Amino acid sequence: MARIVMKFGGTSVADLDRIRSVAARVKREVDAGNEVAVVVSAMAGTTNQLVAWCTALSALHDAREYDTVVATGEQVTSGLLAIALQTIGVNARSWQGWQVPLATDGAHGKARIESIAGGDLIRRMQGGQVPVLAGFQGIGPDGRVTTFGRGGSDTSAVALAAALRAERCDIYTDVDGVYTTDPRIVPRARKLAKIAYEEMLELASVGAKVLQTRSVELAMKEGVRVQVLSSFDDGATLGGDLPGTLVVDEEEIVEKEIVSGIAYSRDEAKLTVRGVPDRPGIAAAIFGPLSAASVNVDMIVQNVSADATTDLTFTLNRADLPRAEKTLAEHQAEIGYATLLADKEVAKISVVGVGMRSHSGVASTMFRALASKGINIQVISTSEIKVSVLISAEYTELAVRALHTAYGLDA
Amino acid sequence: MARIVMKFGGTSVADLDRIRSVAARVKREVDAGNEVAVVVSAMAGTTNQLVAWCTALSALHDAREYDTVVATGEQVTSGLLAIALQTIGVNARSWQGWQVPLATDGAHGKARIESIAGGDLIRRMQGGQVPVLAGFQGIGPDGRVTTFGRGGSDTSAVALAAALRAERCDIYTDVDGVYTTDPRIVPRARKLAKIAYEEMLELASVGAKVLQTRSVELAMKEGVRVQVLSSFDDGATLGGDLPGTLVVDEEEIVEKEIVSGIAYSRDEAKLTVRGVPDRPGIAAAIFGPLSAASVNVDMIVQNVSADATTDLTFTLNRADLPRAEKTLAEHQAEIGYATLLADKEVAKISVVGVGMRSHSGVASTMFRALASKGINIQVISTSEIKVSVLISAEYTELAVRALHTAYGLDA
Repeated sequence: MARIVMKFGGTSVADLDRIRSVAARVKREVDAGNEVAVVVSAMAGTTNQLVAWCTALSALHDAREYDTVVATGEQVTSGLLAIALQTIGVNARSWQGWQVPLATDGAHGKARIESIAGGDLIRRMQGGQVPVLAGFQGIGPDGRVTTFGRGGSDTSAVALAAALRAERCDIYTDVDGVYTTDPRIVPRARKLAKIAYEEMLELASVGAKVLQTRSVELAMKEGVRVQVLSSFDDGATLGGDLPGTLVVDEEEIVEKEIVSGIAYSRDEAKLTVRGVPDRPGIAAAIFGPLSAASVNVDMIVQNVSADATTDLTFTLNRADLPRAEKTLAEHQAEIGYATLLADKEVAKISVVGVGMRSHSGVASTMFRALASKGINIQVISTSEIKVSVLISAEYTELAVRALHTAYGLDA
Repeated sequence: MARIVMKFGGTSVADLDRIRSVAARVKREVDAGNEVAVVVSAMAGTTNQLVAWCTALSALHDAREYDTVVATGEQVTSGLLAIALQTIGVNARSWQGWQVPLATDGAHGKARIESIAGGDLIRRMQGGQVPVLAGFQGIGPDGRVTTFGRGGSDTSAVALAAALRAERCDIYTDVDGVYTTDPRIVPRARKLAKIAYEEMLELASVGAKVLQTRSVELAMKEGVRVQVLSSFDDGATLGGDLPGTLVVDEEEIVEKEIVSGIAYSRDEAKLTVRGVPDRPGIAAAIFGPLSAASVNVDMIVQNVSADATTDLTFTLNRADLPRAEKTLAEHQAEIGYATLLADKEVAKISVVGVGMRSHSGVASTMFRALASKGINIQVISTSEIKVSVLISAEYTELAVRALHTAYGLDA
């Protein structure tokens, strides 16, 4: 017997039939003797519709009212799932953030959870009741509904698991786990049985969109064991091996892979500032205004200067490129650069693994594998558990396949 | 300057354009110097969809969860209207029942309002803010959302007007007021400038579906002046005469009409119990079981008995007829009747007017007018301000037109 939190995303509750399937799955866990709490997203498409209404009325809509409107999507599914559970004999009750209460700060539209009063829920679960929490929302200091930003139901689930001291938080999605890389590119990609929080964070931030980044950060901070699994296949979750991928503390992974996965991102752009005076403070002159304009800069490389000037290259999210160019153009005089050179045809490829901490040679394996395919590396960055390179976008699939093989990840 | 509550129904907020129109109308009242609070229904069709989902999951769905689900329709429109108001420069804020709080009893799905904490709202209105209350809902003693049953937003509006001590409660609907009868039957029907609460109750209960009956009862009890007007035409509501129909205390109507309106209902059925033993207690033997089966009986007539048995005829809602027949069949032995005779082809025609209290001859005018058209009266019932007759359904329009002329109501 265990206490678990089960979270179902929008596609898992997209219509009444799927809500009934979710209810049946919850019942299996209850029948196995587990104490279960459930977190639900809005029915797929609902949140988009609600957001579109707010935006159509005003591009600069009041965030408090936006929260009031969009939070209804999860309220509907929480009530419907409670009804579906009761119908098959499971004692269930829906909960909105303000009822628990699930207290957040006052940052409407992107609120952060401050506390969850879990006592009443725990007593009800011990009494055999299944709480069904509307995800993605809480109540702010002003007594108004707050929401967490898109994908926030993952965060609700992890926070609830922490508050309930649950053994595990199962996140049901439309994929059946975390893979060594994108199976659409590498059919021989393997599903990982376990992955460390830090690896998951690196993979998520470079494009493996399985879990919301904030939910993984929270799971790491609170030590919540998270399982990613599919809501569409019927792999028994009970007893024995878990069917999905368990996201856990590094310590829990006995056999650490040197490299756990290969991630890629096509949402990159590269901007080169040419003819920059090579003097102290020049980086601050460039990145200060960009930061003020909310442009997130990722990789940075500065050429060795041959004369009094140098070139500075950095990568950023492609959507931010126009704002970055405009910002730098406005500051051209004070920075004193000659020209800007933008390139949108780039991709970032990353190899990730906690095993890198104790193994050398990871980067050189990467460089050798890419060179053998004739792929030129434009920029390199490394962290303790990740090596990333920027390459021409047309080589993306080739690079991912080459690296997947080079690190022995093929199934 | 006045303090008013404006209530908009589902067709008035059916899409974003209509919500913008509602916002413009609210702004006109605010610009005229009024303190305004608004109550909104769900977008037309939304509540039906939400109810259908609950019913599809379980015919006997939990009323608490039903309330959680269906209350979201009004929550959405309250937030959207607040955004639309802010967009045109009106300081506005949405309110859910639990935020006010608007406290109800625990009868989920058909809750009754117990109290509204109006103090904070009044202070905000005095400070220039427009509260936009989600209609049809409150919070029960168990801290859960409650709803009032269909049409409950009218009741929300009247209750809010009472709590705010508002000068008037304007109910915007898809008709522009209360008419002397249905204009589809009598094109020369006149719009009434004023009507008494009691008259409105009689007209509503016999088929003039303009205001929810409970909201009129509450308005009468609390002395809230209610105006019924159209959300689709642009009659100036400011200064001078009001464009709709004002529902007020009888005392406020100086020139009382003897008859204010002619109502009809086609939702009737007639049931005759033949060969009933003519002894004391027989009425109780018949109507006791019907009451226990939740069958509402309306008009009752007992024939003068010629021998030891008699016939007893009563009318009821047509939808209840099968249940009534079944109930009486089950009790045939103890009642001791011979046969049941049902007639679904009947209609009830009523003339209503507070002036009847001080005028005689109203009923005889009715009987004469119907007789002159060859219409046979099957059952008669009267109250202090109403005379109703049951006739064959095929004569409905003819009877309504004849009576409208006979009482001098034609425009």
